Amino acid sequence: MSFHSMWTELLPVGRSSVSGGYRRFAWTAADAECRAWFEEQARARGLTHEVDRNGNQWAWLGDPAAGDAVVTGSHLDSVPDGGAFDGPLGVVSAFAALDELRGRGVRFTRPVGIVNFGDEEGARFGLACVGSRLTAGQLTAEQAHRLTDGDGISLPRAMEAAGHDPEAIGPDPERLARIGAFVELHVEQGRALDELGHAVGVASAVWPHGRWRFDFRGEANHAGTTRLTDRHDPMLPYAETVLAARREAERAGAVATFGKVAVEPNGVNAIPSLVRGWLDARATDQDVLDTVVGGIEQAARKGADGHGVALDVVRESCTPVAEFDHALRDDLVRILARGDGPDVPVLGTGAGHDAGILSARIPTAMLFVRNPTGVSHSPAESADEDDCLAGVRALADVLEGLACR
Amino acid sequence: MSFHSMWTELLPVGRSSVSGGYRRFAWTAADAECRAWFEEQARARGLTHEVDRNGNQWAWLGDPAAGDAVVTGSHLDSVPDGGAFDGPLGVVSAFAALDELRGRGVRFTRPVGIVNFGDEEGARFGLACVGSRLTAGQLTAEQAHRLTDGDGISLPRAMEAAGHDPEAIGPDPERLARIGAFVELHVEQGRALDELGHAVGVASAVWPHGRWRFDFRGEANHAGTTRLTDRHDPMLPYAETVLAARREAERAGAVATFGKVAVEPNGVNAIPSLVRGWLDARATDQDVLDTVVGGIEQAARKGADGHGVALDVVRESCTPVAEFDHALRDDLVRILARGDGPDVPVLGTGAGHDAGILSARIPTAMLFVRNPTGVSHSPAESADEDDCLAGVRALADVLEGLACR
Repeated sequence: MSFHSMWTELLPVGRSSVSGGYRRFAWTAADAECRAWFEEQARARGLTHEVDRNGNQWAWLGDPAAGDAVVTGSHLDSVPDGGAFDGPLGVVSAFAALDELRGRGVRFTRPVGIVNFGDEEGARFGLACVGSRLTAGQLTAEQAHRLTDGDGISLPRAMEAAGHDPEAIGPDPERLARIGAFVELHVEQGRALDELGHAVGVASAVWPHGRWRFDFRGEANHAGTTRLTDRHDPMLPYAETVLAARREAERAGAVATFGKVAVEPNGVNAIPSLVRGWLDARATDQDVLDTVVGGIEQAARKGADGHGVALDVVRESCTPVAEFDHALRDDLVRILARGDGPDVPVLGTGAGHDAGILSARIPTAMLFVRNPTGVSHSPAESADEDDCLAGVRALADVLEGLACR
Repeated sequence: MSFHSMWTELLPVGRSSVSGGYRRFAWTAADAECRAWFEEQARARGLTHEVDRNGNQWAWLGDPAAGDAVVTGSHLDSVPDGGAFDGPLGVVSAFAALDELRGRGVRFTRPVGIVNFGDEEGARFGLACVGSRLTAGQLTAEQAHRLTDGDGISLPRAMEAAGHDPEAIGPDPERLARIGAFVELHVEQGRALDELGHAVGVASAVWPHGRWRFDFRGEANHAGTTRLTDRHDPMLPYAETVLAARREAERAGAVATFGKVAVEPNGVNAIPSLVRGWLDARATDQDVLDTVVGGIEQAARKGADGHGVALDVVRESCTPVAEFDHALRDDLVRILARGDGPDVPVLGTGAGHDAGILSARIPTAMLFVRNPTGVSHSPAESADEDDCLAGVRALADVLEGLACR
């Protein structure tokens, strides 16, 4: 079955006719349909299909127990109203790359696996990469058992309803120990490849990233009668901080975003008593991230002081850099240089991935496929079919280079 | 009964033990208690008490039918968790000023009235100055009949429950025609008098004011992966507009506030698709207001263009200036110059008042009493007793000057 046929088959599953976006949430009917499709692809190719204790799906060519396996794949679930490519492109490309290699008549010297990680987006239970986190021991069974969705349904109950035993979940070090390399192909979430004029790139690392809450506390007062000099208006240092975030991120080549705000009392004729803004910041390395967030915080303090407003900054989360295996990355660059020219782009990414989780435990790498709009987590996300096919060829080259030498 | 005794008597009515603020909403039990207090004060002084068709309370010395009456007073209702002074200071001072004049042994040549306007704050039914608007014909009975509170109780039903006939409401031109001058004393909502070192000032006008909605529409995208140059982030021009509002207001001696914001999707890791901010702007005159709002809109357009964001600006309301009667204002300044020194401050105000409503129909003036914190519509609102007594003397001087000449 060609890339195009597989892509077309998967396209209507879990797609909202209203938004045109995907709603493939973990352990729902749409998720089950995606899983059935995966199993069918595995069986049609004579691969051994299995579902691990954490609900991740595997399709094996050769016996993984032999060890040093080469695994590729991604995930099939989606964010609310997500695009068609984020996740599925990696899984469909994995099957297509295997077909390509069989067409080339190569001989495999290592076991090859294709994986569909469960609940990567965390759209339903609020935590991303649940399947890979559990497997890698980054999330305990107890923590996972406490996760609930917006309707109050717990993760164990949802798993059980989908026919999976929630008591089985937990770390799976034996499984990881059998994997010598994991390569995830993913649509780029940005336009770097488009600007560089490349269809395919290699990932360097998942940037360190975090969330900080900025609470600006001023004094509620009458917007019509309180003279400017008598105000303690927290909206002003908030605005200064939003602009400082852009400035600091620009200077450092990082990203920093204020996408969520809460205002009290939030009345048209009331100077706010509180403006609470959340900063999402990501950078190439921890030092740069610290510099960016430090610069933003400094600007926020200066603005708050200038307006007689109190400021609390709370770090809500901070995830360190997930650097991909250098040797494997260099292998990929060398292999791809034969196909895509001498200067394969090596890109960092601000988004989390299962590959980022696994990179702490096993040699891991990522391939990115050009996204001309750069849009992600939206129905507007896209990739040209030619680029997708270039991605399949690149992945086939990588698997051939790794598993057939 | 002294100012102090009246003040102390009224102080506990409708006061929340939790917030320390007042909850004296129109046609509630707390409002009825305030009205009973007003009637008792009138009767104790031998004044004729009446409630007009719109629920406003009047206490008369002399026969208003004689015409050219001099009226003072304010309102007794409050905003949610309002302060003790906004409204009541004007009513209590009216009775105290009458007592002062009787102590001085003056002879009244014009009828003198004290008024408690109903539902000035509009806290319950969402429209301010309902009593004076109805009387002045600025609000029709039909419009008033459609007003409802947060619990779905209509204004007519609430009036009826409080023993007032809602079918009687409507314009009252005969009543207005009998009034030669209305002088409202009010605590200042700002710190101008404090900075000028004066206990009492005279109002020049209620500034023109309005509300504008700024809709910045960008493109929702992943906050972690979308490069800065690929973003259409509406939070950035919003922030620039907030700062421009402050700058333009500062330059023009006006006030401009963004106190209310709505963000979509309002997620920490999502660049917003929409940031909607509401501007409240007020200035000394319409030209200045137009200049300020024009400058803010220009900055908003420039910011929106710079970030590839669409902008719609919608004027939600705009109230023209309410200029107080110049001759009456000059009378007040002349009268007060004898007491408070030669340079009685004449101040504009950004807040609406019953006096502002009536100024369109009859000669109207306002006196302000120093508010050291400048805070308004909050339990932190305050005035020193010495300043309140200076206000009583000033109001007595004004009444003597107007009604005893």
